[in-house]
Amino acid sequence: MYGFKLIAKDRNTKARTGVLSTAHGEIETPIFMPVGTQATVKALTPEQLKECKAQIILGNTYHLFLRPGHKVIEHLGGLHKFMNWDRPILTDSGGYQVFSLSELRKITEEGVEFKSHLDGSKKFLSPEIALEIQNSLNSDIVMVLDECPPYPSTYDYINLSLALTTKWAKRARDAWDYSVEKDGRYQFGIVQGGMIKELRRKATSQLIEIGFDGYAIGGLSVGEPKNLMYEVLGYSVEWLPENKPRYLMGVGKPEDILYAVEQGVDMFDCVLPTRNARNGQLFTKKGTINIKQEKYKLDNKPVEEGCDCYTCRNFSRAYLRHLFHAREILSSVLNTIHNVRFFLRLMEEIRESIKQQKFSEYKREFLKNYNNSEVF
Amino acid sequence: MYGFKLIAKDRNTKARTGVLSTAHGEIETPIFMPVGTQATVKALTPEQLKECKAQIILGNTYHLFLRPGHKVIEHLGGLHKFMNWDRPILTDSGGYQVFSLSELRKITEEGVEFKSHLDGSKKFLSPEIALEIQNSLNSDIVMVLDECPPYPSTYDYINLSLALTTKWAKRARDAWDYSVEKDGRYQFGIVQGGMIKELRRKATSQLIEIGFDGYAIGGLSVGEPKNLMYEVLGYSVEWLPENKPRYLMGVGKPEDILYAVEQGVDMFDCVLPTRNARNGQLFTKKGTINIKQEKYKLDNKPVEEGCDCYTCRNFSRAYLRHLFHAREILSSVLNTIHNVRFFLRLMEEIRESIKQQKFSEYKREFLKNYNNSEVF
Ligand SMILES: [Zn+2]
Ligand SMILES: [Zn+2]
Repeated sequence: MYGFKLIAKDRNTKARTGVLSTAHGEIETPIFMPVGTQATVKALTPEQLKECKAQIILGNTYHLFLRPGHKVIEHLGGLHKFMNWDRPILTDSGGYQVFSLSELRKITEEGVEFKSHLDGSKKFLSPEIALEIQNSLNSDIVMVLDECPPYPSTYDYINLSLALTTKWAKRARDAWDYSVEKDGRYQFGIVQGGMIKELRRKATSQLIEIGFDGYAIGGLSVGEPKNLMYEVLGYSVEWLPENKPRYLMGVGKPEDILYAVEQGVDMFDCVLPTRNARNGQLFTKKGTINIKQEKYKLDNKPVEEGCDCYTCRNFSRAYLRHLFHAREILSSVLNTIHNVRFFLRLMEEIRESIKQQKFSEYKREFLKNYNNSEVF
Repeated sequence: MYGFKLIAKDRNTKARTGVLSTAHGEIETPIFMPVGTQATVKALTPEQLKECKAQIILGNTYHLFLRPGHKVIEHLGGLHKFMNWDRPILTDSGGYQVFSLSELRKITEEGVEFKSHLDGSKKFLSPEIALEIQNSLNSDIVMVLDECPPYPSTYDYINLSLALTTKWAKRARDAWDYSVEKDGRYQFGIVQGGMIKELRRKATSQLIEIGFDGYAIGGLSVGEPKNLMYEVLGYSVEWLPENKPRYLMGVGKPEDILYAVEQGVDMFDCVLPTRNARNGQLFTKKGTINIKQEKYKLDNKPVEEGCDCYTCRNFSRAYLRHLFHAREILSSVLNTIHNVRFFLRLMEEIRESIKQQKFSEYKREFLKNYNNSEVF
């Protein structure tokens, strides 16, 4: 039976745990989705991802649209087969990258024209095309095309932008209704509205009226102060229907994930674990460490005592430090394995704490260790 | 029981197959050793190496001496533990890299002074120090320090160089006799002498007189024409004792390996499979292909039909092409897995053909396919 089912709700907070069933299997929420921009979670094989216990990954429509092209991927059997990942995939709509990576954007009612950051060629995305691409990829969860206003923006700009985003959302949902294969697949709307409560409220009502399978909160973690993000996040989640999955896009840090889970968010994605791994920054329960430091030169301990990842089971900090300084590919591989596993283990523990009605204690304990420690 | 044991000899050629037992397990010859310069076979985890059925790898003394330093590795339990590779390791002496990578070399009777290519610091290697480093690493097979004359060199230069190399070999063997842990470990001498038969003859006799556990043929594949290399290789192998392993250093191409096996060589190493993988060149029985080519854009076939490697079992040429163009780390990983497995499978087939007295047929058939095909 496809659909989203809540398993347990925390009595003391709004945290909840559930299961979303898709055509490529179930995912347990709250969940973290490693980012696989170009049909690969950077540095990892699908087997290594599974060993990290990844249940779902995120693909970037913008990147795959430009290279190798969604028609190429469709010809080769869809994104799952192309990259040999048989578990669920969520794809974004491409909107965020169009506005952050590409040049010469011309936004019209119809859609957005832009220049590819790869070869400068002109491209066009509309709500319908963004869906068509994601259908070609055969993603399990597709996102609607939206415009994410930069921070800060004026009320008028955000208001106008939101009007367009809402129209696009409606068109995307209409197109979805005509999509052929929808069994075990979901389309999520995205709440925008900048940092303005009134506009967020309006955006939410309009999306709910259109009616989506899940709701994302977009436009956060775009440079605003953390307390503002927390404030907007708090009320944004509250207005969403309880029986649908809630996805906080592009967030993020362990402390932000914990806060968002407490507000009732179910899904997360972020490049933090993968990107920082390649820069030598590794996550541990006692805070992050940078593996390039001299003090790890002779350190025979694993990155994190008690971590069950392949890297920690087999290699020392000293070896990882050496690989980093020697600029070896294996450095990125082993660091990424640890960081991805760290985030997925965090989510496992969060889910378990919610089931046991101990989320608040878990959060308090985690933050105490994470913020107040000097690792060595 | 440690030692080298011949299992079968081909009746029609000088090819042979055997087993060398080391403190870290047995290796079957003829064997190919993937190169793990900086305590990692580039892009692969030890598990992936084992899945490629690697039995032994090569480490570079020069690189490990400079970074992270052999004393660091010794402190951390030796090279096997450091890189989590529990099978045999052969380390070279560092000589080749001193002469090819570093600047400001001052050769004296005592040893060679050079500047690190990493930070310009002054370093010194002698036959005794090269052994000490390899003992710290706890390599299963250690090589003596030698000088490899460039090609071309004059008779006089080669003659003088050889005199020094021989003295160094004697000193290295004396130092070996005083080494503490020798059980299941071996020291190989290296035959130099340029392309001059008389000097190669002299070098061989002198090394045999000193008495090593195995013999390497050095100074080939350094820019000389292929027919000259084949000629020198032919007589050089013939003079070696039959009951000791023979190692042709830095060679190489599948066709050269087949020729050398036919002459009675047992061991090989080369960066070809790993380096070329990172450049997108993949080996198949029908010749090499370059995965970046446009014609693979929609090609759903594996790199090589019938290849049992992880890459060929799970990914298409089209996907590998995409990863290469997207400059993804996974491109190097998957390409390296295929190429390393290709070389190791070649060696498996060679060993099997020798056991079945069919080496000549195998070689003929392999070369027919390898040289005369247009892959698609
Ligand atoms: Zn770990
Ligand atoms: Zn293969």
